[in-house]
Amino acid sequence: KLPHNNGMNGNGVHHVSVRAHVSVNPAKLKSHRQRWNVRPSEMSKKTLNPIRAIVDGMKLTPNPEKPMIALSIGDPTVFGNLPTDDTVLQAMKEAIDSHKYNGYAPSVGYQKSREAVSNFYSCPEAPLEGKDVILTSGCSQAIELAISVLCNPGDNILVPRPGFSLYKTLAVSMGIQVKHYNLLPEKSWEIDLQHLESLIDDKTACLIVNNPSNPCGSVFTKDHQHKILAVASRNCIPILADEIYGDMVFPGCDFQPLAPLSSDVPILSCGGLAKCWLVPGWRMGWILIHDHNDIFGTGIREGLVKLSQRILGPCTVVQGALESILNDTPPEFYQGTISFLKSNSEICFSELSTVPGLNPVMPTGAMYIMVGIEMEHFPDFQNDVEFTERLVTEQSVFCLPATAFEYPDFFRIVVTVPEEMMIEACIRIREFCARHYRPRSQDSHDLDQ
Amino acid sequence: KLPHNNGMNGNGVHHVSVRAHVSVNPAKLKSHRQRWNVRPSEMSKKTLNPIRAIVDGMKLTPNPEKPMIALSIGDPTVFGNLPTDDTVLQAMKEAIDSHKYNGYAPSVGYQKSREAVSNFYSCPEAPLEGKDVILTSGCSQAIELAISVLCNPGDNILVPRPGFSLYKTLAVSMGIQVKHYNLLPEKSWEIDLQHLESLIDDKTACLIVNNPSNPCGSVFTKDHQHKILAVASRNCIPILADEIYGDMVFPGCDFQPLAPLSSDVPILSCGGLAKCWLVPGWRMGWILIHDHNDIFGTGIREGLVKLSQRILGPCTVVQGALESILNDTPPEFYQGTISFLKSNSEICFSELSTVPGLNPVMPTGAMYIMVGIEMEHFPDFQNDVEFTERLVTEQSVFCLPATAFEYPDFFRIVVTVPEEMMIEACIRIREFCARHYRPRSQDSHDLDQ
Ligand SMILES: Cc1ncc(COP(=O)(O)O)c(C=O)c1O
Ligand SMILES: Cc1ncc(COP(=O)(O)O)c(C=O)c1O
Repeated sequence: KLPHNNGMNGNGVHHVSVRAHVSVNPAKLKSHRQRWNVRPSEMSKKTLNPIRAIVDGMKLTPNPEKPMIALSIGDPTVFGNLPTDDTVLQAMKEAIDSHKYNGYAPSVGYQKSREAVSNFYSCPEAPLEGKDVILTSGCSQAIELAISVLCNPGDNILVPRPGFSLYKTLAVSMGIQVKHYNLLPEKSWEIDLQHLESLIDDKTACLIVNNPSNPCGSVFTKDHQHKILAVASRNCIPILADEIYGDMVFPGCDFQPLAPLSSDVPILSCGGLAKCWLVPGWRMGWILIHDHNDIFGTGIREGLVKLSQRILGPCTVVQGALESILNDTPPEFYQGTISFLKSNSEICFSELSTVPGLNPVMPTGAMYIMVGIEMEHFPDFQNDVEFTERLVTEQSVFCLPATAFEYPDFFRIVVTVPEEMMIEACIRIREFCARHYRPRSQDSHDLDQ
Repeated sequence: KLPHNNGMNGNGVHHVSVRAHVSVNPAKLKSHRQRWNVRPSEMSKKTLNPIRAIVDGMKLTPNPEKPMIALSIGDPTVFGNLPTDDTVLQAMKEAIDSHKYNGYAPSVGYQKSREAVSNFYSCPEAPLEGKDVILTSGCSQAIELAISVLCNPGDNILVPRPGFSLYKTLAVSMGIQVKHYNLLPEKSWEIDLQHLESLIDDKTACLIVNNPSNPCGSVFTKDHQHKILAVASRNCIPILADEIYGDMVFPGCDFQPLAPLSSDVPILSCGGLAKCWLVPGWRMGWILIHDHNDIFGTGIREGLVKLSQRILGPCTVVQGALESILNDTPPEFYQGTISFLKSNSEICFSELSTVPGLNPVMPTGAMYIMVGIEMEHFPDFQNDVEFTERLVTEQSVFCLPATAFEYPDFFRIVVTVPEEMMIEACIRIREFCARHYRPRSQDSHDLDQ
């Protein structure tokens, strides 16, 4: 039934036979593919998600006698114990009822919504206007656009180790090299500044600073941030500040955004509604362009606008609700979330810090605790992946091995789970460790004396 | 106050003076950038939006005595005369009230929402399941992912001329070459199949077919689509079918999706809520993976999943509402939109087809009419850009010059504007043409006789 062209383009079989017997103008052959051969692009193959790669490779069969407790999922909404505020939902419904937010918005977002964000984050030391805000589809797209506009293939970027894996996933897929700078657990996960600076070369296009940190739950002091800025400043490296957990810090600790501390370093600060407002699925993120000394100039701004036109911005209904979400959410909502996270962190930390062989690092923000494993005391396991795998098999508790964050011999606990679950999980982790802990020969020797 | 490192990394000024006087180990110099030099990436510079480039270059000062009528905006919601259905809004509010759609969805979308889409589009000749659907941030991201997974830098893709500009914008930014195949206005904008086939070479990674068409408003017959598929089949080229205007066709005409007509060609069909449901701002799009003969195999499917993990999927609230939007929107809603578009198209067509010097092509779907300009009769203007520019200056009517679609000497009219506006616009266009029309010497000679 299909019409056939038996002229110059022939069909595949015909070509093959022609080729075998007579010499044919190769230009004609060239124009024709002989058989189906559709392969995924290099870029899609280079888009690697280490968390998926590791978790998919693990044997995660829970102990049928214990209900599963997942301490692995960075989604605060999964257990229902941390709902967003009614104000936030109400703002969405009003946006829908207004019938004003169904059409296309400008690709960088409605001016009013951009101004709502700039007003929310503006401060005298780092003033922001609507034009300094680009609305994006989640903080993930904010990071993608920021890396895309600052880096060319062959450049390198500096990312934290341990750190959020998306930076590397995106960079590698774009042909950008990733250099990891160390965070120091013994110094509350501050950056090893000497190591950081030693990595910088001519091809370094951007320094990514994630504060508060996933997976560490750490929050940098003002002083430390000054030192980070000094490195960036004397090496003339712009900063991508991933501040998605900004303001998600425990009472007594203070979150200090990076930009107001700098007089010269140009900064793209990435954030969004996902964490502080507990609606990660809504995919509302933003880039704040801080450029006090006009170093980005119009080039980077125009580049961001162009890139935003590829798929256009975030959902207009959420954009329409944004002003009210930012301005009307009561302070008690944020406080409630934070005090819950702090309390759960303290439970987890105090439980696990008395478990022989484990070294939890107390967080001061975000929603994670990193726990060091003294691997030499757990000879049953090769590494953090085996350790966490067996924790599932025996105790039905799943924590992400920190190899997923390029940091072996640690695991990460998400502290957004309900308190009873956190307590039960800690009891099970203790039992698991007690069973597998082996004192080192040195220690046993000491004990013998 | 900022700490300074006066050791091996020094500061810029110091380095410059050292360099001028003594020879220094270049390895040390190399590690340090001398001054700020932050430039937008090549990729951002290569992300070119021709519509913006052309429109921004036009002098668009309306005649102060006539209110502006914009027939240029492909957003059916701007005039308020084409609201979405209440069912659609209600579905969103229910999704919000359910409190179930605030967390992260899988990056390709909730399984239930994917199934809602597959059920809606599945048919016996091209059955679909949930796994064959990838939810995306608008049809734009669907197109981006489809091109990204099928093409490598150095490949080429075949796109229609005239055609939607995003294909080229995306491809060029990724280093993919674009080859334009011609559409034939005299054959209701069917594809010039010989021309299409002549463009295919070893590096052709994908054929983009847009049906119904922006900017033409044309709808291909079944027979023509069989012929397109035959070209793809004998040259083994997969198809990206942009069917965002699917089902948006006038009574008496039938929209035939491409995939059910093919037994072998693998097809990624891109669509979304933007047009048929009149909510383009919501950014809900999808890819339907049609692969009856397992030519894409797992490679392309896995590639799409990986690519979707970069920025995650569309807003979860819209995903939550999707099943109800697709299943509960009453047929009268779609019919109402279509009969409005048809009626407005007929008004516009019959008005303009009697204007000397203009050749409108009657559409059968989508929301556009292309109008040919007999430039030889309008010596006051060099081209379609000047023509449409002066139409603003004199008559305050703005139509997009089809140079924006790589098709000079035409302009595109959007037919979603309220009827009175359409009528008034046509009157003004007639007036404008009457004023500038010059019979060709040949014609005047004829008249003299
Ligand atoms: C440090 C960090 N940055 C960015 C993101 C991505 O945020 P979004 O969900 O808004 O894309 C996450 C999500 O977990 C994160 O932990
Ligand atoms: C042919 C065509 N494809 C795709 C799109 C993009 O659709 P969306 O707004 O869902 O990204 C458009 C928008 O105008 C279009 O005309």
